[in-house]
Amino acid sequence: MSTQTPAGYTYGSTPPSPVSRDDLAKLEASVLFTAEDEQALRMAGDVLEDQVEDILDVWYGFVASHPHLVAYFATPDGTVLNDYLTRVRGRFGQWIMDTCRRPHDADWLSYAHEIGLRHTKDKKNRTDAVNSVPYVPLRYMVAFIYPITATMRQFLANKGHAEEAVERMYQAWFKSVTLQTALWLQPYAADQW
Amino acid sequence: MSTQTPAGYTYGSTPPSPVSRDDLAKLEASVLFTAEDEQALRMAGDVLEDQVEDILDVWYGFVASHPHLVAYFATPDGTVLNDYLTRVRGRFGQWIMDTCRRPHDADWLSYAHEIGLRHTKDKKNRTDAVNSVPYVPLRYMVAFIYPITATMRQFLANKGHAEEAVERMYQAWFKSVTLQTALWLQPYAADQW
Repeated sequence: MSTQTPAGYTYGSTPPSPVSRDDLAKLEASVLFTAEDEQALRMAGDVLEDQVEDILDVWYGFVASHPHLVAYFATPDGTVLNDYLTRVRGRFGQWIMDTCRRPHDADWLSYAHEIGLRHTKDKKNRTDAVNSVPYVPLRYMVAFIYPITATMRQFLANKGHAEEAVERMYQAWFKSVTLQTALWLQPYAADQW
Repeated sequence: MSTQTPAGYTYGSTPPSPVSRDDLAKLEASVLFTAEDEQALRMAGDVLEDQVEDILDVWYGFVASHPHLVAYFATPDGTVLNDYLTRVRGRFGQWIMDTCRRPHDADWLSYAHEIGLRHTKDKKNRTDAVNSVPYVPLRYMVAFIYPITATMRQFLANKGHAEEAVERMYQAWFKSVTLQTALWLQPYAADQW
């Protein structure tokens, strides 16, 4: 992947998350995320680093083949915004590497919150100055846990690691995606989050 | 498992879901749920039928070992409500079999909505007439996708099926849990659901 900073990527310069470190620790415990998963994600980072574009091809292919999903990259009357797709793609690739390599500290928590906001009425479209639909529905945020997890296994297996190591990386990925989705949804339902 | 109807189980007699059949079809497509998954879940039903209490032992053991999770089965001042735990457990077991065997029709959609409501300020505690905390936070609803999925694999493998069949059942289970979690969250964020 590119070593350039993706357009609109503001990791390290977003406001503190309303989610506390204690909330995060409880959420990690709820998805059984441990220091071993952190290690497995570091390994996954090395495995995935030169496959990011291939992974994005699979994910974008999936979105592109479903009009009800492409709609979130289109104007309200359905014109697909290719520049928007491209800009988000750069950040999506960066997110893969951040998921593998960033420690779960205050910056990480802050940027997870920013990612969530960028899918809601609060901030969708703002980063890329586009005229797309006003938010990504919560249900698709949750639904994406499946494709974003299941499609990853083949890529984790592509570098000849033993089945046991692939499985460890895959489970850590699944835990992290689930955990991050929970964090992203804070702005959707703050009063019952 | 018991052949009795669990306490508070009202499948088939709840109001229509606000979620349309078209919304459901799009959500199914988003988790790649197909007729093959429906078949795999039918197979899983036969595999899991006599293991339901063992599965619930694992899940309840997980909850019991985390005070921040047991709290949702306790009074606001922290007294665990054992009768409440037992009543919910009966429905949780029934949910496993319903996930495997119920078709995704209007009744199923309606009851998925009812399950969601029973975790929110709208209806938590009402079914069991208990004085517990007012809602289960959205973040734990999402987080549970991981343990409820990952712990299932061993049970699906317990009846000697070929690895490929176990994997098929497991993926179908993962898709269904993700899909149902998305449905359960409708009452948490109706305006951006």
